[in-house]
Amino acid sequence: MIVRRLLSTVRPGFSLSPTIRQLLDSRPETERIVTVSGWIKSVRRQKNVAFAAITDGSDAKGIQAVLLKGIDDETLRRLTMGAAVRVTGRLVSSPSAGQSHEIVVDQKKKGDIVVLGDCDTETYPIQKKDHTAEFLRDQVHFRARTSHISSMLRLRDLLRRRIDTWFESQGFCAVNTPIITGNDAEGAGEAFRLALVENHHPAANSNVEPTPPSEFFGRPAFLTVSHQLHLEALATALSRVYTLSPCFRAEPSQTGKHLAEFWMLEAEWAFPSSSGVHGICDLTEGLLRDTVCGVLESDDVNVLWKKGEDSKRATFLNAFQGSRTWERITYTEAIRELENATSVPFEYQPKWGHALQSEHEKWLAEKLVGGPVFVTDYPAALKPFYMRINDDEKTVACFDLLVPHIGELVGGSVREQRADILEERMDGMEGVEWYLNIRKYGGAPHVGFGMGFERLVSWVSGIENIRECTAMPRWAGRMLL
Amino acid sequence: MIVRRLLSTVRPGFSLSPTIRQLLDSRPETERIVTVSGWIKSVRRQKNVAFAAITDGSDAKGIQAVLLKGIDDETLRRLTMGAAVRVTGRLVSSPSAGQSHEIVVDQKKKGDIVVLGDCDTETYPIQKKDHTAEFLRDQVHFRARTSHISSMLRLRDLLRRRIDTWFESQGFCAVNTPIITGNDAEGAGEAFRLALVENHHPAANSNVEPTPPSEFFGRPAFLTVSHQLHLEALATALSRVYTLSPCFRAEPSQTGKHLAEFWMLEAEWAFPSSSGVHGICDLTEGLLRDTVCGVLESDDVNVLWKKGEDSKRATFLNAFQGSRTWERITYTEAIRELENATSVPFEYQPKWGHALQSEHEKWLAEKLVGGPVFVTDYPAALKPFYMRINDDEKTVACFDLLVPHIGELVGGSVREQRADILEERMDGMEGVEWYLNIRKYGGAPHVGFGMGFERLVSWVSGIENIRECTAMPRWAGRMLL
Repeated sequence: MIVRRLLSTVRPGFSLSPTIRQLLDSRPETERIVTVSGWIKSVRRQKNVAFAAITDGSDAKGIQAVLLKGIDDETLRRLTMGAAVRVTGRLVSSPSAGQSHEIVVDQKKKGDIVVLGDCDTETYPIQKKDHTAEFLRDQVHFRARTSHISSMLRLRDLLRRRIDTWFESQGFCAVNTPIITGNDAEGAGEAFRLALVENHHPAANSNVEPTPPSEFFGRPAFLTVSHQLHLEALATALSRVYTLSPCFRAEPSQTGKHLAEFWMLEAEWAFPSSSGVHGICDLTEGLLRDTVCGVLESDDVNVLWKKGEDSKRATFLNAFQGSRTWERITYTEAIRELENATSVPFEYQPKWGHALQSEHEKWLAEKLVGGPVFVTDYPAALKPFYMRINDDEKTVACFDLLVPHIGELVGGSVREQRADILEERMDGMEGVEWYLNIRKYGGAPHVGFGMGFERLVSWVSGIENIRECTAMPRWAGRMLL
Repeated sequence: MIVRRLLSTVRPGFSLSPTIRQLLDSRPETERIVTVSGWIKSVRRQKNVAFAAITDGSDAKGIQAVLLKGIDDETLRRLTMGAAVRVTGRLVSSPSAGQSHEIVVDQKKKGDIVVLGDCDTETYPIQKKDHTAEFLRDQVHFRARTSHISSMLRLRDLLRRRIDTWFESQGFCAVNTPIITGNDAEGAGEAFRLALVENHHPAANSNVEPTPPSEFFGRPAFLTVSHQLHLEALATALSRVYTLSPCFRAEPSQTGKHLAEFWMLEAEWAFPSSSGVHGICDLTEGLLRDTVCGVLESDDVNVLWKKGEDSKRATFLNAFQGSRTWERITYTEAIRELENATSVPFEYQPKWGHALQSEHEKWLAEKLVGGPVFVTDYPAALKPFYMRINDDEKTVACFDLLVPHIGELVGGSVREQRADILEERMDGMEGVEWYLNIRKYGGAPHVGFGMGFERLVSWVSGIENIRECTAMPRWAGRMLL
């Protein structure tokens, strides 16, 4: 069957009315009548005129409506912070600083303002003053109405879109791997488990005893802690795959760096051009540079960086200036540097074969390097079974990317392709024969990494606590809505 | 702080080597030496030459390597179906039909072929013959290596990208709403519940009795069945939001139309231009036309439509030809049509106030209309509390989009904005005060819809069972990997 060229013949041409952002992006030069809808951020009343700042959440700035005399008093009274309104008026160049345009509402010239949803400021939890992050976490259904959280949400979207574009340019296919899995992450107790289900639809009027609750899938089911193993199966079919997908950890952590539900960017690709870990570092750095450089000048990023954080921000920006690539040191070198830093009062003594503690990672990125640093080739005993053993037989071909003020942003490795070595390391693990078999049959060399998406948002925006880097955060003891 | 223009100064210029698709898309005109990596699909040996079809999963076609005499016998022997290889040779225009280029491997001219991963065809579960869908479901870690499943995965990606582009053009922000929620979907028993967790890190050597397992979040937690309610909170802040996100239903269904884990496209937007349901239908149709028309000519879609399904495919294509918009009828009209179809032996008698059964939906889309049909304004008693009551006080402002061979593809509605009416309908529901409050404070009129992503893939590709519309399907009793 021949498929006719359809695109040109059918265009119903559907289009929503422009958002405030779309309206201003079109750089209108001639005055015209426009209608915008949104919420009142603030109102200033003067004798013959009132000014209402309106946002529809499409950008960080919103637009100012100039309400000339003649708007009825009842409507004016209802223009309170938070009220939903529809405004029709002339879009004109603005004489005020900080805005290119404003809307002049003049009833004599078809101007109009309609209140679509009132907001009683007496009882509305969101007030004009800056609320603390803690207070807003209790108002999670309202907090996207604040400029800070709405900027964060737009930044997330922008980062995600740039990531998608970048991976597409590199020949990757985005895939969806399962959330519910039989893999319990090696029984470390960090995986949420699904409860048993009541048995469904017992036959009506039957005399059969009710059966006890059972596993819905016939075996224990968990929420995934990482998509890596599943991605590996797809990478040995599609060559280059990635996913930006939810992951879950039942960690009791109450720090600002962990969530029980978070989004992770994970990529796996076959046939890497070099055999060690450096090709993965190259790709990771290329991805981050291209993605982050494209958002640095957005209004939302400017809103998010707090005043008084110039030095932290300069450190961040420095990573993207100049053409020098990011530092790389081996774990062994990193331990040596830490051991030599005798003047630093570490709580934990750095020692080869022991994990790097947060204080060590912090010192490496913030003090030794003063920027992002790839720490490579950790001892095999510290890392999971799937990482490729180096020729020294003591270390694995892996890296952690440490960045100032964040800690570990990305972790990646060459995957152990040699079925015999992998089998030995997996001795005693159950239900992983499939994972061996993707090596035994047409196994291709492949590599990959994972990046916590909220941590990326945190790095780029300066937001300190990742509970403010997602719309509706969940952590131990806390799940609103 | 002034952020300098960075994009132009730092470009590490990272790039992976081109995939087969990228190589061929660049339409090379002069011969040159290239290297491609992938897996052998088939090998044909002749006296002085062998032909190996190679795919790297980047497109539906792959590329043919022509191996001239001189390749060593041991390598030739290892070129079995499924083996991973790296091939270097001259990329030349191909004299054969069905391919634009091929790679000529001639050892005298720096040609080279290296086996990176052997594949023992004796025991490899994937054979050259077509396997049944059922067989491949047992080989879920391998099945993306078949042309059918890999085409489906690329089609998913393509559809997703086009959906993203379309929503961006309409001023929408993509958001991530929670997977774990306190909302049990009105206790219908369809929501998976998380198991209690063991209490963490009991103090060492303490004499305190171990405490029993408890709720990790301090209250019952479920996997979301829909992101709608959370999206509504964000739509009353950002105006236009959508998500393509996992959803879960603990349904015992064993049909080809239901999965326990599936992806759903859900959108909510505030300030719709018209007050009834038709604005949502307009947007839905605009989205589907623009998204689907852009993929109809892809090789992957052609691979997926089976031979002998011309009539089913013609019905599908017909929806995108011409400029006539899709049919819309009210539920009341649909019941009248069904009642009048006295010659059709329905199992269930159609009757106003009763749900449309699958057989009714099928008849409406396939027989009455012969294409997609929006059925609007269902009786309030059949639909959830959040849909807006029409002025007749009997029906709600909602629609289901029914399409031939699929059934319900999209469902949407105007959301009840009037807090008093909503409160009445929610009488007795717990933990939903926040949902009322987003109306009470600056509540804006808003509307939305949900579309099963696997059903969309099924419609576009002709794949009958949605277990073949996702990489690693889960349903009652079945969860591999």
